[in-house]
Amino acid sequence: MPRHDWILTDVDCGIHHSSLLLSAADVPGSPAGWSMCQTTLQGGLRQGVQAVDLANGLLRVRVLPTRGMGLWKAWLGEMELGWQAPLRGPVHPAFVPLDEASGIGWLSGFDELLCRCGLEWNGAPEFHADGRVKHTLHGRIANLPAHRLHFSVDTEARSLALRGEVDEGRLFGPRLRLTSTVSTVADSPTLVIEDCVANLSSRPSDLQLLYHINLGRPLVTPGARLFAPLRRLIPKDEHSAGDVASWQEYPAEQAGCQETVLFLDLAADGQGRTSVLLQAADERHGLLLTFQRQQFPYFIVWKCPQPAADGYVTGLEPAINLPHGKTFEAQQGRVARLAPGARREFRLELTALASSAALAQAREQIAELGRGVTPELCDRPQPGWSPGV
Amino acid sequence: MPRHDWILTDVDCGIHHSSLLLSAADVPGSPAGWSMCQTTLQGGLRQGVQAVDLANGLLRVRVLPTRGMGLWKAWLGEMELGWQAPLRGPVHPAFVPLDEASGIGWLSGFDELLCRCGLEWNGAPEFHADGRVKHTLHGRIANLPAHRLHFSVDTEARSLALRGEVDEGRLFGPRLRLTSTVSTVADSPTLVIEDCVANLSSRPSDLQLLYHINLGRPLVTPGARLFAPLRRLIPKDEHSAGDVASWQEYPAEQAGCQETVLFLDLAADGQGRTSVLLQAADERHGLLLTFQRQQFPYFIVWKCPQPAADGYVTGLEPAINLPHGKTFEAQQGRVARLAPGARREFRLELTALASSAALAQAREQIAELGRGVTPELCDRPQPGWSPGV
Amino acid sequence: MPRHDWILTDVDCGIHHSSLLLSAADVPGSPAGWSMCQTTLQGGLRQGVQAVDLANGLLRVRVLPTRGMGLWKAWLGEMELGWQAPLRGPVHPAFVPLDEASGIGWLSGFDELLCRCGLEWNGAPEFHADGRVKHTLHGRIANLPAHRLHFSVDTEARSLALRGEVDEGRLFGPRLRLTSTVSTVADSPTLVIEDCVANLSSRPSDLQLLYHINLGRPLVTPGARLFAPLRRLIPKDEHSAGDVASWQEYPAEQAGCQETVLFLDLAADGQGRTSVLLQAADERHGLLLTFQRQQFPYFIVWKCPQPAADGYVTGLEPAINLPHGKTFEAQQGRVARLAPGARREFRLELTALASSAALAQAREQIAELGRGVTPELCDRPQPGWSPGV
Repeated sequence: MPRHDWILTDVDCGIHHSSLLLSAADVPGSPAGWSMCQTTLQGGLRQGVQAVDLANGLLRVRVLPTRGMGLWKAWLGEMELGWQAPLRGPVHPAFVPLDEASGIGWLSGFDELLCRCGLEWNGAPEFHADGRVKHTLHGRIANLPAHRLHFSVDTEARSLALRGEVDEGRLFGPRLRLTSTVSTVADSPTLVIEDCVANLSSRPSDLQLLYHINLGRPLVTPGARLFAPLRRLIPKDEHSAGDVASWQEYPAEQAGCQETVLFLDLAADGQGRTSVLLQAADERHGLLLTFQRQQFPYFIVWKCPQPAADGYVTGLEPAINLPHGKTFEAQQGRVARLAPGARREFRLELTALASSAALAQAREQIAELGRGVTPELCDRPQPGWSPGV
Repeated sequence: MPRHDWILTDVDCGIHHSSLLLSAADVPGSPAGWSMCQTTLQGGLRQGVQAVDLANGLLRVRVLPTRGMGLWKAWLGEMELGWQAPLRGPVHPAFVPLDEASGIGWLSGFDELLCRCGLEWNGAPEFHADGRVKHTLHGRIANLPAHRLHFSVDTEARSLALRGEVDEGRLFGPRLRLTSTVSTVADSPTLVIEDCVANLSSRPSDLQLLYHINLGRPLVTPGARLFAPLRRLIPKDEHSAGDVASWQEYPAEQAGCQETVLFLDLAADGQGRTSVLLQAADERHGLLLTFQRQQFPYFIVWKCPQPAADGYVTGLEPAINLPHGKTFEAQQGRVARLAPGARREFRLELTALASSAALAQAREQIAELGRGVTPELCDRPQPGWSPGV
Repeated sequence: MPRHDWILTDVDCGIHHSSLLLSAADVPGSPAGWSMCQTTLQGGLRQGVQAVDLANGLLRVRVLPTRGMGLWKAWLGEMELGWQAPLRGPVHPAFVPLDEASGIGWLSGFDELLCRCGLEWNGAPEFHADGRVKHTLHGRIANLPAHRLHFSVDTEARSLALRGEVDEGRLFGPRLRLTSTVSTVADSPTLVIEDCVANLSSRPSDLQLLYHINLGRPLVTPGARLFAPLRRLIPKDEHSAGDVASWQEYPAEQAGCQETVLFLDLAADGQGRTSVLLQAADERHGLLLTFQRQQFPYFIVWKCPQPAADGYVTGLEPAINLPHGKTFEAQQGRVARLAPGARREFRLELTALASSAALAQAREQIAELGRGVTPELCDRPQPGWSPGV
């Protein structure tokens, strides 16, 4: 039996550990140096947040079952992947005013390396004609807790895996289940996220999904650079149009700046795989993101080059829709529909790079993907890609 | 001293147990087989919910002090009383968006066998002319925690009782106190709920109250049947009017169905007692509900015959008002008014039945209550009973 | 080393005590009789609220790191300082519906002796033209938890100090940090609150701040009396104008009464210090409040003489603005602006008095401050001091 299993949480069976530590010594034959540490965070806004730290001997990541299986931060040696939001998270959903009349209360919980936006909707807030919020920013899933959590070690594959189930549902509403598995192989710089969203209802259900992967210091500072096998690039609005020519660049810090949003269409290889690289200004560190273009037809780049005090940050966002209000997205046919019992799968790889050689290889890989493609850079927002155009 | 007492929670005295187990062995002379188990639930949406399981040797019930002394589920041997909402509760109030702009965020916490709707208001959400929510669906009491909790065993009466106090109040608002006692006699199939609502304020206070008693699988499936000593039946709306002739029946599952709501006026015996029976399709299981007609002048039957995946469910709802918006109810004189210091009492009996004989006896009891009464079945909504009629 | 230090909470370092007790025996050379008791409250609305009780041998105070470093109550021997709100707090923020559409959901958490109103805004709720809430009552800071908490004993100064840091911030929002230190000298009847608000953002930030110091039974009952070195007194509205002549008095309980709000301009001594005295009806107990007039240009007196059941209470409120909606305050130039990196400091002394002699001395001190000043009592609301005048 190469696989060893632990149920960390199962509300139906009354199983829940407030803290648990496992490591190589607990599993004969498993690779040295790994550990799984489950804790309940204490103090401040994180009071009561469940966290699971997975370490594979090289890479460490903190997963947040309480926040929809988001990834808080990851570490490769000294290098931290994530960003410094102007709040001290991770934030327990009890402190997130999702229903703030502004529609953007979601931001009070936003400080992760990776969080999901969805599932019934995501994108910009929308309001009814009478002023009531119709759709809050980025939906509910990032503030819903996992009701089941499972950890396994495979001694043959030399891998660790954490799987969590999170439900978004209620009477008269949808009944969607996210099953997310974060796995990694011993001593590897790569995290693999395999998600499945299933419609458990007897009725069809809407699905919107966007992975908000956020990077700031130390990786992303002025001088950082983005590499992607571009086919087409469309700016979201007039302000973002000013960044089209400099889409690969991260500018100097600028107080009170406006955000830039670019929509990218990416080339893929014969198997449909594509990659995007974020390279630090030192040209020796970076993050490589790899996924199937078919699973994520849209890729959004969000740049917030405000001073570090306010959270200099970029978002790399593979998605099945654009982050506009749901109504506009529905008009454009970008709201997916899951039949009763249907499921959709999503897979993402995040690889931390920490040498010039690794970066050179990643740049070459992306160049290869884009070989023969002449990127189309739109210098204006395009009809169907932004409202009011 | 036949009565033995335990204070489980008293915030004024700093008393609170996160877990406590008592059983027959702890009380000399008490009946065999009972137990009281207090726990704090962990994981998922239930993180931090306090639960008290009372078992009398035959029947077991889980009471939720954190959710306004609601009853989560009850069990008689293999038979579960309750329903399968499309969420995994019980839900801590921190995860219930009561102030969602839709007005129906309350549904995110709704999965109990019995929850109270009230106290300052209940019923459908209402909105101000400017679009702001005026009254959210079903009020606040189901998401307020008990600040005092007391358990007792009476060796003479052979009974267990759990009493909790829940306050609904704030500066410039009401100051209503619900004191709820759930009791049961050893080896009895009956739970007795004795509630008192007191106005602790120096000003008069509104009171609306409805007991949402919800049943789904395994008791309520297509073929289940309702028995009630009907005097008059009024459908809530045109859709519900289609169910008047079949008011006793539970239909086949139907995806995307609309809910049916029927208002029942019930006959009572010489002491004012009346009963309603829900009989399972197997005609061997059921739930008998008994109460004073004077305490509950209205009885609402709610049918949601959607597929089990979405929560096939019926609500049996003794109430002091109809579940319309509070403004309409006030116009009809159905918002109670409690003078300063005044209190109102409510008593409900829930009896689980698990044999053909017990069901036959219950049917006969209801037939007896209705003897000599010719039920008036209104085939349309009635003025004063529904808005806009 | 006269100072001994303990970190009670530091989320960055993973430090948090759910309970900790320190006392004189733990610090050689420290004054007898002091203690510091950190606990996590359990049950009811207080479930999960962190509380720190400081006792200096004479005075005891309960500080609430979970509620923005508010003071719940203080005790001098038998005398309790605080009030009896019509709810059983302290209330965990998870139970406070800040985003209730009424704009006043904040009141569901309001029961402290001292809470802060701010930081980005405070005052009456404001609504957008479309009905959406723009600013909720009294802002966010009272419902935000400290992420760092530090306790120290100084054996030379014979003092205890508790310092907490609370952040109000999020992406695209402000990034304000409150650092609050509550200190007291052994056997002294005085609490000193030293607060610093810093703008950690790279952009300028608004700041509104009001200290809501609330007193009810046993100190404030009909017959209690207020002393202040009055220069000018302005009623907030027509109703409050009726109280101008009786501004020092606390009236008989009155069910369903309207609140009275008076704006006071106070004289100060050569060092800018000023004081206000609340004297109990027995003329032997009281609370003396001392602060710098320059730090707090406004002083608001709020009287709510409703029956004790509903919370007979007065608020003494040193502030940097008036408690009107933020838009009106901004028009009047009463919204402070903090430059990036700037900070403002605030200091308050609360002294519990428990003898006729101490009260006489306090009255004399206030009389001295007001010597030579002829108070101007405005019998009507004044332009610029209230909207619509």
